[in-house]
Amino acid sequence: MIIDKLIEKIIQRKNPSVVGLDPTAEIIPNYIKDKYVDAYGETNLAMAYAIIDFNKGIIDGISDIVPAVKPQIAFYESYGVEGMKAYQQTIEYAKSKGLIVIGDIKRGDIGSTCEGYAKGHFYGDFEADIVTLNPYLGYDSIEPFNRDKEKGAFVLIKTSNKSSKDLQDLEVDGYKVYELVAQRVTEWGGNSLGKYGYSNLGGVVGATYPEEGEKIRRIMKNSYLLVPGYGAQGGGAKDVVNLFNNDGLGAIVNSSRGIIAAYKKGYQEQQYTEAARQAAISMREDITKALEEAGKGF
Amino acid sequence: MIIDKLIEKIIQRKNPSVVGLDPTAEIIPNYIKDKYVDAYGETNLAMAYAIIDFNKGIIDGISDIVPAVKPQIAFYESYGVEGMKAYQQTIEYAKSKGLIVIGDIKRGDIGSTCEGYAKGHFYGDFEADIVTLNPYLGYDSIEPFNRDKEKGAFVLIKTSNKSSKDLQDLEVDGYKVYELVAQRVTEWGGNSLGKYGYSNLGGVVGATYPEEGEKIRRIMKNSYLLVPGYGAQGGGAKDVVNLFNNDGLGAIVNSSRGIIAAYKKGYQEQQYTEAARQAAISMREDITKALEEAGKGF
Repeated sequence: MIIDKLIEKIIQRKNPSVVGLDPTAEIIPNYIKDKYVDAYGETNLAMAYAIIDFNKGIIDGISDIVPAVKPQIAFYESYGVEGMKAYQQTIEYAKSKGLIVIGDIKRGDIGSTCEGYAKGHFYGDFEADIVTLNPYLGYDSIEPFNRDKEKGAFVLIKTSNKSSKDLQDLEVDGYKVYELVAQRVTEWGGNSLGKYGYSNLGGVVGATYPEEGEKIRRIMKNSYLLVPGYGAQGGGAKDVVNLFNNDGLGAIVNSSRGIIAAYKKGYQEQQYTEAARQAAISMREDITKALEEAGKGF
Repeated sequence: MIIDKLIEKIIQRKNPSVVGLDPTAEIIPNYIKDKYVDAYGETNLAMAYAIIDFNKGIIDGISDIVPAVKPQIAFYESYGVEGMKAYQQTIEYAKSKGLIVIGDIKRGDIGSTCEGYAKGHFYGDFEADIVTLNPYLGYDSIEPFNRDKEKGAFVLIKTSNKSSKDLQDLEVDGYKVYELVAQRVTEWGGNSLGKYGYSNLGGVVGATYPEEGEKIRRIMKNSYLLVPGYGAQGGGAKDVVNLFNNDGLGAIVNSSRGIIAAYKKGYQEQQYTEAARQAAISMREDITKALEEAGKGF
């Protein structure tokens, strides 16, 4: 099962964190961008090459530190067909370095359409190990991603953004919509658990909502939680500790900008690989220390 | 405003319907597939060429009949980078034939990420006039698509699939979640209306849920509704009439398989363009007749 593979990698690296590969023009060092803009002009092709080059440097710096990376497809899709090639090549490179790949695609559609997404993102050019999904269309939009035991999904429960309240916090018979979604996802994923007691269907819970996260933790006992919002979005290690179970498992914390733009705090541009590595190590220490203090070491 | 352009095209063509360009291996005629498989083997490239070829034939058959086409991106994404090229070229060809393009992408993500999607799907390779969006993350996932008056979006309200009930039908203080989403979308889009009294932010309402659709019609008075589920999914003209306002405007009905696979009912494969044309004409007559009978002619 893919969740067992993820957990084994987390234990091996002693690190329940993941690096978000969200390359923007603003984050990629100028010396990399300039190289490709000089060759190809201000084009999608130049940006796609810059993205691949930059991502390889990040992956080289962190591949023995973190268990997984999470490319956010929107940052690639924005550069069109060439951007999608960069997404594909980023995934390939991350896999070649032994990393588990979480494709942050947040897709969701009905029956046959959803099969198309599953084909592209589990068995095609954009093959990830795990993807993120949107629950608004209900289970038939999740099911095509919940068949293959070697693949998994994290379904949005309570997202890290401000307006997540608009729909997710609506109250139904004393429960918030996100709590009911957490229950549904638990049911959908509940039939088969791996050797650590977790299912292949997890949830996405923003570190920016620690109280809501604790409620979700209690509901989704046997599900892994993917936790964005740590670092740049304002969540700290204390905020995420309660999203872990007592065994020290059950959550994986994402940082994107905090790692990939780490060089902007006191490094030269050319040192971005080393800066990312140091930031990933700091994040690991920050989280594992907080877990140990809470008696959740592993 | 884009909604005015869409309405003008609907009035000009006397046709409030849209053709879904959802090409699958099963729908594309064998003689087209064989041509490219012979040349490129069983590859994504061969399928991408087959898709473009097929779509051009469909567009040629319907471009003076319907106001718009709606390519569903999942069917292209499933063929990877080459599939995305086919999506891009399909959009370009449809625009060159004077059609409005509704990109059925159902994206939704937070702040900066959502900007990435908006860039790719409004101003990049995948430039549509209107896109579909998922509301689960709240308004900050919609806002980047709601700035430019020459662009618009249809937000999922009540989808046509069976398990749309899982989340959309949860009850909050006597209201269903989809009703509250309908209210929110109306508020989000409400500030500026075009000359026909509609906003650039519409909703997606499945023809398979006519009662729910009527409720949504009443809530979203000034919003256009995109209505999938007509034809192959079981909705008929009677089911969609109540989704229109009394002025005969306010809705646009989608058919995909019913048009693009029409050749399978009594035509030769090579006649798929003509079959699609006849099916599009029949759909127009079916809907406009039902509208006239309901006193909603335009």
